[in-house]
Amino acid sequence: MLRLYDYLASGNAYKARLLMRLLDRPFERIDVDILEGESRTEEFLRKNPEGRIPVLELDDGTCLFESNAILCYLAEGTPWLPGDRLDRARVLQWLFWEQYSHEPNIATVRHWVKHVGVPEDKRALFEQKRALGVKALSVMERHLEGRPYFVGDRCTVADLALYAYTHVADEGGFDLGPFPRIRAWLDRVADRPGFTPITQR
Amino acid sequence: MLRLYDYLASGNAYKARLLMRLLDRPFERIDVDILEGESRTEEFLRKNPEGRIPVLELDDGTCLFESNAILCYLAEGTPWLPGDRLDRARVLQWLFWEQYSHEPNIATVRHWVKHVGVPEDKRALFEQKRALGVKALSVMERHLEGRPYFVGDRCTVADLALYAYTHVADEGGFDLGPFPRIRAWLDRVADRPGFTPITQR
Repeated sequence: MLRLYDYLASGNAYKARLLMRLLDRPFERIDVDILEGESRTEEFLRKNPEGRIPVLELDDGTCLFESNAILCYLAEGTPWLPGDRLDRARVLQWLFWEQYSHEPNIATVRHWVKHVGVPEDKRALFEQKRALGVKALSVMERHLEGRPYFVGDRCTVADLALYAYTHVADEGGFDLGPFPRIRAWLDRVADRPGFTPITQR
Repeated sequence: MLRLYDYLASGNAYKARLLMRLLDRPFERIDVDILEGESRTEEFLRKNPEGRIPVLELDDGTCLFESNAILCYLAEGTPWLPGDRLDRARVLQWLFWEQYSHEPNIATVRHWVKHVGVPEDKRALFEQKRALGVKALSVMERHLEGRPYFVGDRCTVADLALYAYTHVADEGGFDLGPFPRIRAWLDRVADRPGFTPITQR
């Protein structure tokens, strides 16, 4: 059975958890307490040299890391990852954009605000990341004009990846009030059969 | 014909340029002077709302952004992107890792050192990124133990993406001396037929 090395509050881990539930795919959840250093042990570093969750362990012990690569692996051959070459590339485009321009800002700000407090020597970086987080939300809002989902007219892993930290952006102090298209899109994603919230073990 | 919105010194743009040459695929290069704000014009933001190069424009005017998504689009159906599901996911894993753990550190440090100088208020961030850059090189060095390339026994887009900023890491002050496996791997990649250096227009 698939094993997911998981941390409940992590949006990155939630991506994999959510997709496996949407696909009705059974898996074993293994809690890794990242705040207590459990992702930095020698044993864990053999699964992911970067020391981060999520990690997906396959039946034969093979470990995959990087949340968006795990999404693509699980979604291959399902409607969550288009077969068409250009649409596939567009899905990847948003997945890479999420990891470069969205997550390092919105998720990091949320992590500081919600879990560990803003480090005293990182106040300037915090403000910069807040501004870049708002910029990322603006890019999403503009892209969603006249579109139900990020790529084509169906929900794909691009939407799931972006959903993960956008729907909890308020926990980092981001206000989704000025982004009505994002709010309507969040509702559409959460409306999918089999959808489970981030808090569900 | 394919059009690449390009900036010669950019490792991200080089990825697409290099792969198209390795594939012997003709394309038109359009220079965008990112230091002069040419990637921030209204016209350019319609091609990539993030205001970054590279952008690949297809025959019908469709624009793709995010360097690693462009790599996957171009490589689809070629030996540069494996067809096997697990190997494909491993390639994606390294592509996402490159954009999250490698490029933001090694490329940013190089950009500051080579192009614009280290901003006075970013000295602490600079030091942090240098340390994370060295950590990224260490992860690569360890992974290359007993492996000729990052995934399987052939050169894939994962190698090209990682090559782009690793081979110019010295321009950011990174010393590849302690990383013999990385140096041997760089040589292997540069030895591919059709390979062109980053300086070639």
